[in-house]
Amino acid sequence: MRQAATRDLENVDVAILGVPFDSATSYRSGTRFGPRKIREVSAMLWGSNQALRVAPLEHVRVIDYGDVDVVPVDIHATFERITHDVKTIHAAGATVITLGGDHSITLPLLRAHHARFGKIAVVHFDSHGDMWEYDFEGFRFSHGTTFRRAVQENLLDTDAYLQIGIRGSTSDFDDYARATQLGARIITIRDAMKMGTENIVETIHQTTGKRPVYVSFDIDSVDPAYAPGTGTPEVGGFTSFQALEMVRGLNGLTLVGFDIVEVNPSFDHSDITSLLAANLAFEFLSLLALKKQNRK
Amino acid sequence: MRQAATRDLENVDVAILGVPFDSATSYRSGTRFGPRKIREVSAMLWGSNQALRVAPLEHVRVIDYGDVDVVPVDIHATFERITHDVKTIHAAGATVITLGGDHSITLPLLRAHHARFGKIAVVHFDSHGDMWEYDFEGFRFSHGTTFRRAVQENLLDTDAYLQIGIRGSTSDFDDYARATQLGARIITIRDAMKMGTENIVETIHQTTGKRPVYVSFDIDSVDPAYAPGTGTPEVGGFTSFQALEMVRGLNGLTLVGFDIVEVNPSFDHSDITSLLAANLAFEFLSLLALKKQNRK
Amino acid sequence: MRQAATRDLENVDVAILGVPFDSATSYRSGTRFGPRKIREVSAMLWGSNQALRVAPLEHVRVIDYGDVDVVPVDIHATFERITHDVKTIHAAGATVITLGGDHSITLPLLRAHHARFGKIAVVHFDSHGDMWEYDFEGFRFSHGTTFRRAVQENLLDTDAYLQIGIRGSTSDFDDYARATQLGARIITIRDAMKMGTENIVETIHQTTGKRPVYVSFDIDSVDPAYAPGTGTPEVGGFTSFQALEMVRGLNGLTLVGFDIVEVNPSFDHSDITSLLAANLAFEFLSLLALKKQNRK
Amino acid sequence: MRQAATRDLENVDVAILGVPFDSATSYRSGTRFGPRKIREVSAMLWGSNQALRVAPLEHVRVIDYGDVDVVPVDIHATFERITHDVKTIHAAGATVITLGGDHSITLPLLRAHHARFGKIAVVHFDSHGDMWEYDFEGFRFSHGTTFRRAVQENLLDTDAYLQIGIRGSTSDFDDYARATQLGARIITIRDAMKMGTENIVETIHQTTGKRPVYVSFDIDSVDPAYAPGTGTPEVGGFTSFQALEMVRGLNGLTLVGFDIVEVNPSFDHSDITSLLAANLAFEFLSLLALKKQNRK
Amino acid sequence: MRQAATRDLENVDVAILGVPFDSATSYRSGTRFGPRKIREVSAMLWGSNQALRVAPLEHVRVIDYGDVDVVPVDIHATFERITHDVKTIHAAGATVITLGGDHSITLPLLRAHHARFGKIAVVHFDSHGDMWEYDFEGFRFSHGTTFRRAVQENLLDTDAYLQIGIRGSTSDFDDYARATQLGARIITIRDAMKMGTENIVETIHQTTGKRPVYVSFDIDSVDPAYAPGTGTPEVGGFTSFQALEMVRGLNGLTLVGFDIVEVNPSFDHSDITSLLAANLAFEFLSLLALKKQNRK
Amino acid sequence: MRQAATRDLENVDVAILGVPFDSATSYRSGTRFGPRKIREVSAMLWGSNQALRVAPLEHVRVIDYGDVDVVPVDIHATFERITHDVKTIHAAGATVITLGGDHSITLPLLRAHHARFGKIAVVHFDSHGDMWEYDFEGFRFSHGTTFRRAVQENLLDTDAYLQIGIRGSTSDFDDYARATQLGARIITIRDAMKMGTENIVETIHQTTGKRPVYVSFDIDSVDPAYAPGTGTPEVGGFTSFQALEMVRGLNGLTLVGFDIVEVNPSFDHSDITSLLAANLAFEFLSLLALKKQNRK
Repeated sequence: MRQAATRDLENVDVAILGVPFDSATSYRSGTRFGPRKIREVSAMLWGSNQALRVAPLEHVRVIDYGDVDVVPVDIHATFERITHDVKTIHAAGATVITLGGDHSITLPLLRAHHARFGKIAVVHFDSHGDMWEYDFEGFRFSHGTTFRRAVQENLLDTDAYLQIGIRGSTSDFDDYARATQLGARIITIRDAMKMGTENIVETIHQTTGKRPVYVSFDIDSVDPAYAPGTGTPEVGGFTSFQALEMVRGLNGLTLVGFDIVEVNPSFDHSDITSLLAANLAFEFLSLLALKKQNRK
Repeated sequence: MRQAATRDLENVDVAILGVPFDSATSYRSGTRFGPRKIREVSAMLWGSNQALRVAPLEHVRVIDYGDVDVVPVDIHATFERITHDVKTIHAAGATVITLGGDHSITLPLLRAHHARFGKIAVVHFDSHGDMWEYDFEGFRFSHGTTFRRAVQENLLDTDAYLQIGIRGSTSDFDDYARATQLGARIITIRDAMKMGTENIVETIHQTTGKRPVYVSFDIDSVDPAYAPGTGTPEVGGFTSFQALEMVRGLNGLTLVGFDIVEVNPSFDHSDITSLLAANLAFEFLSLLALKKQNRK
Repeated sequence: MRQAATRDLENVDVAILGVPFDSATSYRSGTRFGPRKIREVSAMLWGSNQALRVAPLEHVRVIDYGDVDVVPVDIHATFERITHDVKTIHAAGATVITLGGDHSITLPLLRAHHARFGKIAVVHFDSHGDMWEYDFEGFRFSHGTTFRRAVQENLLDTDAYLQIGIRGSTSDFDDYARATQLGARIITIRDAMKMGTENIVETIHQTTGKRPVYVSFDIDSVDPAYAPGTGTPEVGGFTSFQALEMVRGLNGLTLVGFDIVEVNPSFDHSDITSLLAANLAFEFLSLLALKKQNRK
Repeated sequence: MRQAATRDLENVDVAILGVPFDSATSYRSGTRFGPRKIREVSAMLWGSNQALRVAPLEHVRVIDYGDVDVVPVDIHATFERITHDVKTIHAAGATVITLGGDHSITLPLLRAHHARFGKIAVVHFDSHGDMWEYDFEGFRFSHGTTFRRAVQENLLDTDAYLQIGIRGSTSDFDDYARATQLGARIITIRDAMKMGTENIVETIHQTTGKRPVYVSFDIDSVDPAYAPGTGTPEVGGFTSFQALEMVRGLNGLTLVGFDIVEVNPSFDHSDITSLLAANLAFEFLSLLALKKQNRK
Repeated sequence: MRQAATRDLENVDVAILGVPFDSATSYRSGTRFGPRKIREVSAMLWGSNQALRVAPLEHVRVIDYGDVDVVPVDIHATFERITHDVKTIHAAGATVITLGGDHSITLPLLRAHHARFGKIAVVHFDSHGDMWEYDFEGFRFSHGTTFRRAVQENLLDTDAYLQIGIRGSTSDFDDYARATQLGARIITIRDAMKMGTENIVETIHQTTGKRPVYVSFDIDSVDPAYAPGTGTPEVGGFTSFQALEMVRGLNGLTLVGFDIVEVNPSFDHSDITSLLAANLAFEFLSLLALKKQNRK
Repeated sequence: MRQAATRDLENVDVAILGVPFDSATSYRSGTRFGPRKIREVSAMLWGSNQALRVAPLEHVRVIDYGDVDVVPVDIHATFERITHDVKTIHAAGATVITLGGDHSITLPLLRAHHARFGKIAVVHFDSHGDMWEYDFEGFRFSHGTTFRRAVQENLLDTDAYLQIGIRGSTSDFDDYARATQLGARIITIRDAMKMGTENIVETIHQTTGKRPVYVSFDIDSVDPAYAPGTGTPEVGGFTSFQALEMVRGLNGLTLVGFDIVEVNPSFDHSDITSLLAANLAFEFLSLLALKKQNRK
């Protein structure tokens, strides 16, 4: 399903945007090659989604917008360019599906979506809450501070901000409590395993209701057995089947944006992480197609 | 449990046959080394199957028949040689366990089994239905057309043809419908995950009854976390435990043949895919031993 | 959470001990680098355990005691040095968490723990029972004979010796029966998958009661999808989530020692096996912290 | 230097053509991904060649013509499509640089070049002569029979056919003698190492003179330390520096075509083989630019 | 030869300093793990250098100063911290051996050395001149602009600035000419291969004379066959033997500092790149020992 | 050229013997899989040696004797079994080519050869002299003490004991001096690179004369670029071409035995180390064939 990149936004419904930026990574760098590899393995995908019963390209016009012209040495310039590109796409009336890159990029993505949609509900799949005050002491931006910044910048509708799959040791004993105070509703992996994907999906629907919903999918929410190609793997996570089912379960929500981040091909094998990422993006694309199909 | 290859079929109950052929592969080639690697790691297997409570070599005489003398540049010659070798083994009264190779090789395997057993029930574990009209436009044989060809050649008993584990995007919206029209009963991975392995096993027994049953196991039915070493991995699949349980559950059927295909060592790591394949073949061998033991 | 190694045992509650020994391995050697790699990836762990709700270092004083000075060419000298180091640590009143190394090292570990605690209950996670009479004919010590030796040396309380996760083919048809006669209570992987981790945990508690409990965790009890980095992988095993849950479930027992063995970094990828091992050790450390916290 | 593929041949001087075909491989398949990977790593190349002092794109207009639509199961159809594409490019007046694929593809390439240029001199870098009568008994086409077929089809000017880098064991004691009888001038690796690259280059110039020269570069002529990513590696070969110097040394010849074959990314690491291949193609492209520059 | 890191500089002659920074990388990130891995494999080194006939630790007191506390998201802060740490070490009278990290870090290293030694001669081993005006348009600092910045900041004695091993395509036709105008004396790889290491060494001595000499060793000056673990490999480079001989050949110069950069363990295999880097650092350490020994 | 193992020594000229023992390794274990892998890749070798102009199997009858039944936990038992197997082969009049295993195994090999041939000249290719008093303090046998033990046991003719390729740091400043005192003539890698392979070969011939010559080839004498798959790689070594030329240069000597050791497939890539080892063994086999051919 690969196609050459273009910046022609005329009549476009969905633009795929790459953000090959990994300078805000605390441990293993390398997610800069996430967009390239996800695109490459997307050659293994076909046009019809049997699980959701839709052939997305028959309903939405999709382009590969190419990559944001990131600056590895300057996170501020990079953030501005991300916001600029998303706003350009939004101005043309299209929805953005972003391929990361480390999770820091979700902050400018949220800024741009907030500019268009106002405060947004966020469904955030991750093993880490990414709500640190600082990752590198005294520096406000990193892949571990994204969602605290987003809350502080009033980008999120904190009545409808879900973190799903959270687990692992934390630097602070009160990490979860503070995240909750900031407005996050945390479904830990232990909660999630007990609930099952159907109940998680139900909870997402109840929480977000008719709000505009942005979905941020950190691939390390999935277990490293299924997604070894990531920078800060956290054992004890979702299976790929569970991940797919949860994204499919978002059908019916007012979906306004999606990112899949933290895919690090340097630590992958047999491309299985990139392939999962490509499939998750394809599921989201299919949801957009269903949404448009239903509107008609 | 490795032994030197031999073509001496006297008093043989089961012959292991390698088919190192990968020229009909649409994406990543390399399954030609499947047979060699599966044999190598079979050194890690011992003689007693505790799950099925049988020490197979005490009941059946097994040989390694070696590899079919395949011709990478000629699929027709290769198919004839496969059929020839299987018929030779059948003529000696032995059952064949085949180590692939890409899935195209199952067509000549089915031809040979049909020649001996007539129309056969098929239990087909796979993430793909392999029922395309063409994989490479205008060319009838590939690893993606095997079962359409088999149906067209009247080799299968289409009242008892099960596809188990089917998933992933398809090239055609009506892919499943057409497969069903051709006679396949599809248990998608979503069906399978809901049913559980016990119910799948029950369905297999009900569907195949007392028919002669051929089992074709494409390793990509298993999730790439458990079986990364394959050519067209499809995320969201079975665990290795589920795969083993389903094969064990075939106990009691009139089993007449087995293949394990699409093991691609070039994309494996730590030999886990080959090891799973070797174990699946061992489970099937154990079933043959139980069958013989019970006949006495 | 890494720190420089020290032999200063004053006021120490827990000592981490590496045993880089792999000369008793029957198949793939390389576990000698287990301790080094587990320590390296432990840099990815933070201080607070959210699942068990404890920040262990606030309750127990932990040191890295460094590695036993093993002798690859002499298993007897190695065993003596292991026992010596553990006894030294015990003499200082500290508990030992051992990072292996192949499973042969558990025999001297059990000897040292027996010397301090008398006959001990053992919770043994493994895919193999390691109760062979001989691994290499005529030689009594190897990673496959550990627990038979331990029983023969009267180190275990055989009323409370559990093997959990046992699976795979065996060299002998009566393998399990003999293990049971020797006093092992076997929960095979098929039992385990049916029971679920909660029932397994319940069984452990009922069996061990108030006895002193030693926990030996062979990483190959976990499925090779989650723990490829091991010497004799056995397909069809636990998920990492299940492994973590079972160790957490030991909370409340009279825990006296722990080892995590058979981590072989040469066959790992993306460090996921070492990372799981580091997390399992962290869970056990957290249990020790809870135990001490509760005593107060 | 990557660009999107196009079939627009207007005013084109050089067309890059991929041939992702590996079904004629005798040992390790996987060269089908050679063209994709070489293109990917060509992103690491810049526009100015300092060794040859030319910025090729300032002198020649280059396009990426994309891949031949190969048929893995049919070598004859594949050969026809290769010949067809090359003839189409030739008809537009452009020179072809081909990225393989296994070495069988050089036969149709030579056919097409012969059709345009008549009998051609060939400079053939390889560790193997590829002059077998049969690779797979009774089948005429494979990556081991290419140059015997080419001689038999009278495509080559056997007064100017050089094999450079030949080494390794052979199936037949008279292998070299027969190749010589067929018209090949063999510079074995031992000859080559004694001569040094300058003398090899001198010999090439003396032998080919003003004839039209086709260059076929099998990456396995280079030592596997420098080019591990290939199907039938042969130890004791050229360094990458020597390979580059020899191609640069072709400057001044009447160069009419080039292929770089047998790059197998599945067995590469750190992309070093593909990177060498991309550089070799870039050197050849630079030679074409110099040729055109000098004509003006 | 590993030892625990310390910041105690009393009586220290040489401090090993890690700079795990890779945010100024243009292609493959990952050099942040260079320092850790080089230290790890330094366990394979022993105390006596037979080539230079010196046991360095008998003559110089060496400490591992640990890593600079880099900030991946802020190159300016990182540069300041590098300069600060080096100045601290210098203030204690010790020489710094730096383990990178990408090549951007050499700029602050040169600043600090300039602060102590004034304009310094530089022997710069590299495949790239790193003298771009911009790597990322409009941003002055990256691993491709280091030496232009250094010249512009008047840190170097441009009468004695050598670049050795330069090769590969360049973005600009006049790249070399401009570097020469800025004061670099370029010994391209083609020059180098003709000269041989002895003549290169002779040239270095003649050029630098009695000036204070800083040595910056980019591991990509070595061929990727010998040093695959790097971010922008360039084929056709030095062998490891040549690299060692050139560093040994610096004996007798007024050596004031050394860095080994661009070691990227994510793309290494069998640790051979890190091992070469550790050996090169050991050779330099040995030179410092000889210098001190000779002073006595 | 692979064949099934046999112990039938009738009319055998040469027996290939595997010794899968790696318990005497000081750093990276894993050479136990050397014999298996070398045999596997020997499938890539053909029957005619063009460099030495001989088709060995036409002159000598060769068998694969299989592996010594080593005991990983007992080096003494292993040594006895090695000696026993070699003596058995010698008793049948055949020459042994041994595939290791770590270098400790050469001691029992030398004992057995000494028993048959008396004091033997030894040509020892290695980066390390393996002449330590102890590798593991107080334990006499390891892969680092082999040749000191051999000298102490009077197995070698110390007038004709050459070490070729020695390099790297040493634990002791007088390492080389002591080796020389023990009778070793050391050609360091620096000597070797200056001499060139022809002069090395000349020196070997002059030194050994008509004595019976045993050749022990540690693969780490070759540079890790060419032979990464080894336990203690040492940078700055021979190329594969040089290695092959030196072995070929032994033609004419009274060759009585050969081993190729320290091949560690766990750290290899693309099988290039094993392939080099297989080729080196093939060159030696060819020398034996030439010797027999010349006798006639």
